[in-house]
Amino acid sequence: MAAFDSTEHPHRRFNALNGEWVLVSPHRSKRPWQGQQETPDADQRPAYDPGCYLCPGNTRANGSVNPAYASTFVFDNDFAALLPDTPAGTIDEGGLLRAEAESGVGRVICFSPRHDLTLPEMSTPDIRQVVDLWVDELKALGAQPDINYVQIFENKGQMMGCSNPHPHGQIWAQRTVPSEPAKETVQQLAYYQQHGRTLLADYLGIELQKRERVVLENEHFMVLVPFWAVWPFETLLVARRPVQDITQLTPEERDALADAIRRLTIRYDNLFNISFPYSAGLHQRPTDGQEHPEWHLHMHFYPPLLRSATVRKFMVGYEMLGNPQRDITPEFSAAKLRSLPEVHYKTLGQ
Amino acid sequence: MAAFDSTEHPHRRFNALNGEWVLVSPHRSKRPWQGQQETPDADQRPAYDPGCYLCPGNTRANGSVNPAYASTFVFDNDFAALLPDTPAGTIDEGGLLRAEAESGVGRVICFSPRHDLTLPEMSTPDIRQVVDLWVDELKALGAQPDINYVQIFENKGQMMGCSNPHPHGQIWAQRTVPSEPAKETVQQLAYYQQHGRTLLADYLGIELQKRERVVLENEHFMVLVPFWAVWPFETLLVARRPVQDITQLTPEERDALADAIRRLTIRYDNLFNISFPYSAGLHQRPTDGQEHPEWHLHMHFYPPLLRSATVRKFMVGYEMLGNPQRDITPEFSAAKLRSLPEVHYKTLGQ
Ligand SMILES: O=P(O)(O)O[C@H]1O[C@H](CO)[C@@H](O)[C@H](O)[C@H]1O
Ligand SMILES: O=P(O)(O)O[C@H]1O[C@H](CO)[C@@H](O)[C@H](O)[C@H]1O
Repeated sequence: MAAFDSTEHPHRRFNALNGEWVLVSPHRSKRPWQGQQETPDADQRPAYDPGCYLCPGNTRANGSVNPAYASTFVFDNDFAALLPDTPAGTIDEGGLLRAEAESGVGRVICFSPRHDLTLPEMSTPDIRQVVDLWVDELKALGAQPDINYVQIFENKGQMMGCSNPHPHGQIWAQRTVPSEPAKETVQQLAYYQQHGRTLLADYLGIELQKRERVVLENEHFMVLVPFWAVWPFETLLVARRPVQDITQLTPEERDALADAIRRLTIRYDNLFNISFPYSAGLHQRPTDGQEHPEWHLHMHFYPPLLRSATVRKFMVGYEMLGNPQRDITPEFSAAKLRSLPEVHYKTLGQ
Repeated sequence: MAAFDSTEHPHRRFNALNGEWVLVSPHRSKRPWQGQQETPDADQRPAYDPGCYLCPGNTRANGSVNPAYASTFVFDNDFAALLPDTPAGTIDEGGLLRAEAESGVGRVICFSPRHDLTLPEMSTPDIRQVVDLWVDELKALGAQPDINYVQIFENKGQMMGCSNPHPHGQIWAQRTVPSEPAKETVQQLAYYQQHGRTLLADYLGIELQKRERVVLENEHFMVLVPFWAVWPFETLLVARRPVQDITQLTPEERDALADAIRRLTIRYDNLFNISFPYSAGLHQRPTDGQEHPEWHLHMHFYPPLLRSATVRKFMVGYEMLGNPQRDITPEFSAAKLRSLPEVHYKTLGQ
């Protein structure tokens, strides 16, 4: 029998950041697909849409009127999943029925007044405005005593449950720390206590030596397909300096974050020559007033597409009941993303 | 401020079975939906499809010919994610890059020779044949020394990544215990060690008293929307007797399992008058040769639809980066499922 080869043989990989496993089946990429075909989002939209509830000057469902904003615009979500004025309370029956009231805030962030743009089509200075707004929001929300975690994220594309193509993201901020950052706190803290360095600093060191999973880099950030990636083209954007959250970034680092997001999302769009759907978000320290030196700022990108603009990866039966599974290796995906140009396909040849 | 009311106020619920949390936002069910619309699967299919790779007598992609089977039929998946002859091997670089070879088997189970049926349209005796096959497969696979977990599941509907409407399920059996049953082992073991009874036996006791989350029952099984349900119409099918796996079921219990599956899936189809998509699967003790008295046989049903045949729940940005979130309460969903008839909509009025 041949020796174990991770480019060929089924294996499990450990996610050092959240402590879970993913099953990798490299040989399975040849599987024919006769299932559901996705419909890519329309590629052409007007710069202003009178029916859009996010465009400047328009009236939203609840009667509020958007200002004639020129760069970014943030407001409380009209249908927020979290509300500030939730009365406290708990349920506990024998440890089997357990619940607790949760308070918080939902915010919507418009990235641009232009209805027809997306992050990869915006300029770096314009993305920098979005980064600045994230910083301001994290500062303001994190300062509230009853907000202990601030989740900043974007759902891009109808395939990712986004109901409005106007470029925007969200913030859900709440009293407790949600499961994913809680798991990452456990893993990062254990590593920090043992080594005196952040888990991601040491992980970046390894990846920089190997370079087989690196997608792109600038002076302050790295983008790579993590060793434990679940989604076919999942990436991890990591700060080179082990900062705990975006409020600590220098002005140059904020520019570099905008640059990394722009270059990554352009490569994503260029992968299948469509506006590439994903959910993405920042992971940073809880806003519980603790220092959290173990925390290392990063951003996850979770795109669903697998082999073309119309064939996605389904996380279904085995994945829901067992654990996540992928068909192509992270190394293959990284090489593919690395091979793509950083000029957006819509502007190529113009 | 009013007292905390779980039918009105945002709250978190604890999943006693896997140790994780779900955010519940009852007030949010009124949110308008302008996003992606799903296309229900075609309701009419021929009893035999010459192009189907699962119909009796047909030739599959790899040249194998299906027998002219009359009830169920099982074979090795032609594109299995797990393979028996994987060479052993591990990777470990500083605890940060960790992988291990994984061996296993993938099986496909046809539920019926009829291309046009689904479980809710099959008779109880015919579903019992499927249960019997599950038992046989669990016995045979579980007896292999290098198979320590056998995951039996079904992806139903294109929306759940199913690429062939012929009624069928799958088995992925492997060397290690996947994440979800591993988490359930931890929770069930802790409870059993403390109380000397299974977690689900005591949980069933509470639900039988309250009855607000019960959907249906027979002499040997209960179906309920668990207190911690993530998906809008998620259900948990639980054996009343605390058995560890399906090989321990008596003939009467096997019939009762078929009955419960049939009645539940009919209610599901009747919810929106379509063939209701879901992923479902059995959770039972690992086949590692241990007794596992803490384990209590159950089956999860994870259906994606939220408010109609065309509007699904998206588990995206917040859910992927934070934790699962739902908009209607489990109690509301249970009442809705309880209100539906157990005669399939296609045969109503016939
Ligand atoms: O094995 P199938 O039916 O081809 O594939 C389907 O089920 C598998 C197991 O849940 C998933 O990994 C695939 O993403 C899904 O499309
Ligand atoms: O808030 P939206 O954009 O209306 O809704 C979208 O994002 C939310 C947060 O990830 C999800 O809970 C919803 O299922 C999804 O449709």
